[in-house]
Amino acid sequence: MFESLPDRVSVYEVSPRDGLQNETAIVPTTKKKRLLDALAASGLARIEMTSFVSPRWVPQLADADDLCALVDQRDPSVVYSALCPNEKGLERAIAGGIREIGMFVSASETHNKKNVNKTIDETLAVFEPVCVGARAAGIAVRGYVSCLWGCPYEGAIDPRRGLAVAHRLVELGCYQVSLGDTIGVGTPKQTRDIVKLFLAEFRPEQVALHLHDTRGTALANVIVGLDCGVRDFDASVGGLGGCPYAPGAAGNLATEDLVFTLHGMGVRTGVDLERLWEAGKVAESIVGRPLPSKVHQAGVRSLRS
Amino acid sequence: MFESLPDRVSVYEVSPRDGLQNETAIVPTTKKKRLLDALAASGLARIEMTSFVSPRWVPQLADADDLCALVDQRDPSVVYSALCPNEKGLERAIAGGIREIGMFVSASETHNKKNVNKTIDETLAVFEPVCVGARAAGIAVRGYVSCLWGCPYEGAIDPRRGLAVAHRLVELGCYQVSLGDTIGVGTPKQTRDIVKLFLAEFRPEQVALHLHDTRGTALANVIVGLDCGVRDFDASVGGLGGCPYAPGAAGNLATEDLVFTLHGMGVRTGVDLERLWEAGKVAESIVGRPLPSKVHQAGVRSLRS
Repeated sequence: MFESLPDRVSVYEVSPRDGLQNETAIVPTTKKKRLLDALAASGLARIEMTSFVSPRWVPQLADADDLCALVDQRDPSVVYSALCPNEKGLERAIAGGIREIGMFVSASETHNKKNVNKTIDETLAVFEPVCVGARAAGIAVRGYVSCLWGCPYEGAIDPRRGLAVAHRLVELGCYQVSLGDTIGVGTPKQTRDIVKLFLAEFRPEQVALHLHDTRGTALANVIVGLDCGVRDFDASVGGLGGCPYAPGAAGNLATEDLVFTLHGMGVRTGVDLERLWEAGKVAESIVGRPLPSKVHQAGVRSLRS
Repeated sequence: MFESLPDRVSVYEVSPRDGLQNETAIVPTTKKKRLLDALAASGLARIEMTSFVSPRWVPQLADADDLCALVDQRDPSVVYSALCPNEKGLERAIAGGIREIGMFVSASETHNKKNVNKTIDETLAVFEPVCVGARAAGIAVRGYVSCLWGCPYEGAIDPRRGLAVAHRLVELGCYQVSLGDTIGVGTPKQTRDIVKLFLAEFRPEQVALHLHDTRGTALANVIVGLDCGVRDFDASVGGLGGCPYAPGAAGNLATEDLVFTLHGMGVRTGVDLERLWEAGKVAESIVGRPLPSKVHQAGVRSLRS
């Protein structure tokens, strides 16, 4: 175990989108900008900042266009991405200067249908012209396969269904596919099996893990993924977030806990943990409730003693 | 990874002692009995129920003698143990019908001194007649080495110091030594190194892990320990507990999260997760505050869907 740890991994920060989308409060755009600035100041180089969905579905992210205008997207040190479910979304992404978009498909037919009212095939058909248009505009595309560890409606999911979806996303032009344990039911042996299945067919840089901590297993699953060769991990500062269409899906893996653990293993992330902790305090102040990250709660100063 | 997982591991429940000792509220003895009954009903076979320390130091456990009288210690399905720091404690343990005692030493000289106002050597000298007396009375003895992953006063600890302490405890007659990350600073690679060091000199059944979740790493460390050959894990229902003499040491590994994860990996524990979840609700009700276990918060019914 840990015989070939990498020097460095990439952390993909999702709190401004996956986190804030699940808050009942609508956070003002200027406060979102404060969070983005704090995250960028910590050294995070990839930040998913919003989603170009209909404001009717996700009112929390209705200010996506305004937020794009506030952020300096030409800053070479950070890529700010946005979810983009359709061609209308792509128009907004292009207008907003977005350099990377993300698109979600579920490994579960039922979850996909409940989420976007389309089958998996119909969803992928909608994505095709979006990917063509994004490529033409020089925009990178990242895919997500959700509910790969389990579905709130169907229960267990055959990971080969998710593998087939991932292949379709890569064929459409996704440079990377992030594998989602959307409802946080995954356990480490299952994670090993899923990661091995995907790394047998994809290069390591094509695979990321997007794990929710609903049952406390996210970090254990990350460590297993890391040992099996994954080098990209999604996380959310403070542990902000969940999934509004998956009952019981509360809490992303906390970025602070991930970064603390990786650094403790000698794996660099490019992130300054003290500044990240401060970004967590910003996140906490703008949502107005205590956040679940353990490192957030314990503090980072004590680590020096 | 996970090439030789065991069929079964043993969970050592510490909430009635390590958990309740860290609550500000003094829980009435009858409520403690309710918690013990709920824990035993879940199938937990080893429960650390109290400590024979001076009520001046730990008023939360001042009712140790009364609690012993309430519990049926002849029940062959559960061993109820108690911490026992000295000969006076052993007298109380014998009078109370206790079948197993535990004794703590720190791997950190400074932490040990702050904890019991004795050096490590002085502490072990006090334990010697206790162990002799326990053996004569047919009482099993379990040792703990705390602060092995790090000390709140000294910082990094050379694990070979803990190894030397563990050897002394085994020489005194401890059938098992539980290795403590008392302040929850451990990361997985460090855990691998510590576990390999100990399993090179002890048999697997002589080694347990006692991990705190202060920085969210406890379960990841358990999984690493499991993969390296550990078969005994301490945990506390709901995540109750900490260490009153180690600043920042909040929260044991939650038993529910541990059991959920092990079962998900096909490793049996003998524990019924639904009943364990109910025991967590009892723990929550008697301490009167929300408990941090994620499985506790998420519930277990949803897992059937």
